[in-house]
Amino acid sequence: MTVYDIIAKKKTGGVLSREEIDFFIAGYTEGRIPDYQASALLMAICLRGMTDREAADLTGAMMRSGDVIDLSALGARTADKHSTGGVGDKTTLIVAPLAAAIGCTVAKMSGRGLGLTGGTVDKLESIAGYRTSLTPEEFLTTVKRTGIAVVGQSGCLAPADKKLYALRDVTATVDSIPLIASSIMSKKLASGAKRIVLDVKVGSGAFMKTEEEARHLARLMVDIGRAHGRSVCAVLSDMGAPLGRAVGNALEVAEAVEVLRGGGCPRLRALCKPLAALMAEGALGLPREVAEERAEAALTNGDAYRKMCEWIAAQGGDASLLHDTSRLPRATHSYTVRADRSGFLTAIDAEAVGRAAMLLGAGRERKEDPIDPTAGVRLERTVGDRVERGDAIATLLTDTRSDRFPEVASLLSEGIAIGDAAPILRNVILDVIG
Amino acid sequence: MTVYDIIAKKKTGGVLSREEIDFFIAGYTEGRIPDYQASALLMAICLRGMTDREAADLTGAMMRSGDVIDLSALGARTADKHSTGGVGDKTTLIVAPLAAAIGCTVAKMSGRGLGLTGGTVDKLESIAGYRTSLTPEEFLTTVKRTGIAVVGQSGCLAPADKKLYALRDVTATVDSIPLIASSIMSKKLASGAKRIVLDVKVGSGAFMKTEEEARHLARLMVDIGRAHGRSVCAVLSDMGAPLGRAVGNALEVAEAVEVLRGGGCPRLRALCKPLAALMAEGALGLPREVAEERAEAALTNGDAYRKMCEWIAAQGGDASLLHDTSRLPRATHSYTVRADRSGFLTAIDAEAVGRAAMLLGAGRERKEDPIDPTAGVRLERTVGDRVERGDAIATLLTDTRSDRFPEVASLLSEGIAIGDAAPILRNVILDVIG
Repeated sequence: MTVYDIIAKKKTGGVLSREEIDFFIAGYTEGRIPDYQASALLMAICLRGMTDREAADLTGAMMRSGDVIDLSALGARTADKHSTGGVGDKTTLIVAPLAAAIGCTVAKMSGRGLGLTGGTVDKLESIAGYRTSLTPEEFLTTVKRTGIAVVGQSGCLAPADKKLYALRDVTATVDSIPLIASSIMSKKLASGAKRIVLDVKVGSGAFMKTEEEARHLARLMVDIGRAHGRSVCAVLSDMGAPLGRAVGNALEVAEAVEVLRGGGCPRLRALCKPLAALMAEGALGLPREVAEERAEAALTNGDAYRKMCEWIAAQGGDASLLHDTSRLPRATHSYTVRADRSGFLTAIDAEAVGRAAMLLGAGRERKEDPIDPTAGVRLERTVGDRVERGDAIATLLTDTRSDRFPEVASLLSEGIAIGDAAPILRNVILDVIG
Repeated sequence: MTVYDIIAKKKTGGVLSREEIDFFIAGYTEGRIPDYQASALLMAICLRGMTDREAADLTGAMMRSGDVIDLSALGARTADKHSTGGVGDKTTLIVAPLAAAIGCTVAKMSGRGLGLTGGTVDKLESIAGYRTSLTPEEFLTTVKRTGIAVVGQSGCLAPADKKLYALRDVTATVDSIPLIASSIMSKKLASGAKRIVLDVKVGSGAFMKTEEEARHLARLMVDIGRAHGRSVCAVLSDMGAPLGRAVGNALEVAEAVEVLRGGGCPRLRALCKPLAALMAEGALGLPREVAEERAEAALTNGDAYRKMCEWIAAQGGDASLLHDTSRLPRATHSYTVRADRSGFLTAIDAEAVGRAAMLLGAGRERKEDPIDPTAGVRLERTVGDRVERGDAIATLLTDTRSDRFPEVASLLSEGIAIGDAAPILRNVILDVIG
């Protein structure tokens, strides 16, 4: 078997065997197969596609390229959630403690920000004392005691995916649904949970721009997970506008706390509650309606909020900051973006908001850049609201980049549309698959 | 402009601009664009194709990546020939002096063997004293004096093509007609002749297996050459069986001499005469029939043979070896392959003969291997002949690898078919394009 023959086979539209996929992934991970052969194969996969069986085999090979976490010591109720990413996506901060509050075991590894804004780990680091790095023993002990722990992703999880992703990123081979699905699922499967709930974002602020491709991706990931013996389902969720009112690390922690206390932005709540319920459905074997009722109850009776405090404290964080979120890191500089006409807010472009937050310091322009936990954008109004000329629509916040306020304000204004008629809003959850 | 955007454009089926192609070729030649991005683009080109305009621009960019030879000092009658390669292809040894004998100016650069057997330069080196390397001044002086010179290809001719070809060779991206056409034409255009005749081989012993793809390649190369202001035509020639009776370096020189003296294998003569005539047609502005008559005359009246002797002597070779070809390097070991049944010879697989010659020392297994000028295969019978069981069909010859006789004989026998009915032979020239 040679990699040349594997490339030639895929180029002519052939279906790769499991052995061929294993040979490629092992050879590439170990450096025997050079980047220039891997990128030729990736391009052939982009253009010729992969069968679901090939995608499942690719996922398995990438999963086995590194550590595969064994969570069996934690029992049968382990549940994980993955979001395909979006601007202002703080769902993990809400869903993880909510699912734990209703009985799931949440032993979660999260990433740092890759796109415009910080990842879950960056957000959690805005809470003083919170440790995103635990030893494997600390991690298991914490989960056993509190039912939840959230740490940064280990470098040894699916290293083949990490290496291939970096190559895809510079060779225009990212947007292949089988490659995206196997990249996500290799890490999720390696993370060990029995139940996996996928949140696939659709819209201008998401990687999947159309519902059709999002549905295709979701269905493939569900099939891949099941082929590997996990219980998987996926929701398609609308990402036309940012999720919630806040984009930025400490700002999103504060917004998550609001929701866990039973308040917060209705659309954000409308997404998080079903996600947690779907985790419980599979992990606890509950009917979906019962799981949804329990999630609703945990938000209103304070269980979810108490679980968050318990979790943050267990990982060394100062839980008193959750009781008074005004004590979280706060920006010293702010700038108000106002409506330039009267009417209805018809669109807030998620990508523009994300880019604004990034430029203010909430995300990384380069991998080595530090994050400003105070930086970000707070939306004072949201899509559908009636506004008068001069009303505050958004507040820009930063400790470090106030010099960029005029540039960022103008970028953000371009992403805001005000019209004469109230827009029709889509449900945040478009569909549940599996 | 970034190479990422260029890859993404071709991946989605876009048409690259001349500027984009120039940017890629310059960046890749100078090492700014890494192999892994180039191979992704090559695979996208293989699968998405290129318009004729893109192929012409790619050819131009690769031509300009190195030296572009100016033959204007040699006048308006410069003519060149290129063959897409085949087993036992000694046409250059015949066509170059024949074209020169009828008035063309032949300032030719030829390659060493890349495939199974030696290239023109390897063949010429079996003539004692022949210098395949001349200074540019010697080259021009020789052509001015004798009307012909044939040297090895300079390293500075289309270096972009050389680098890309090496990458295509290991990434399964060789078999793209626009890439093949631009690779060949970039070197031919850089070599400077006004008239270019292409010999595109079709069949089991050639790179183009079907007439349809050979025709496509020929037409594209003709168009590319014309887009760059050259006079170009192409013949499609049959390569179902080896060309002529001899495969191997000194063996092929002897066979070329036979043809130039007015004898030799009829199929070989039937190909070489029109090739030389087509060179003259474009270079001298003759009607095709007149050019053919002149070529025929030069073969029968000895002009072509005398031109070969003059040329070989001008480049330092011992022309007396041509008068008595038995004094060319001669193998000390020989082995006869015999018919295992009686009947008609229906097929001699060109690739099997080429591989046999290579294993005996006529070609290189690795780039650094030396060539045995005596080694090769002489066909004692050819396709269409009646043979009796035990008749000699081929003779294996070598100075160095007689240990391989049994292995090579069995390999060659597998490529020889004997049937009950005489086969129908195709014309050697299937069509002329342009």
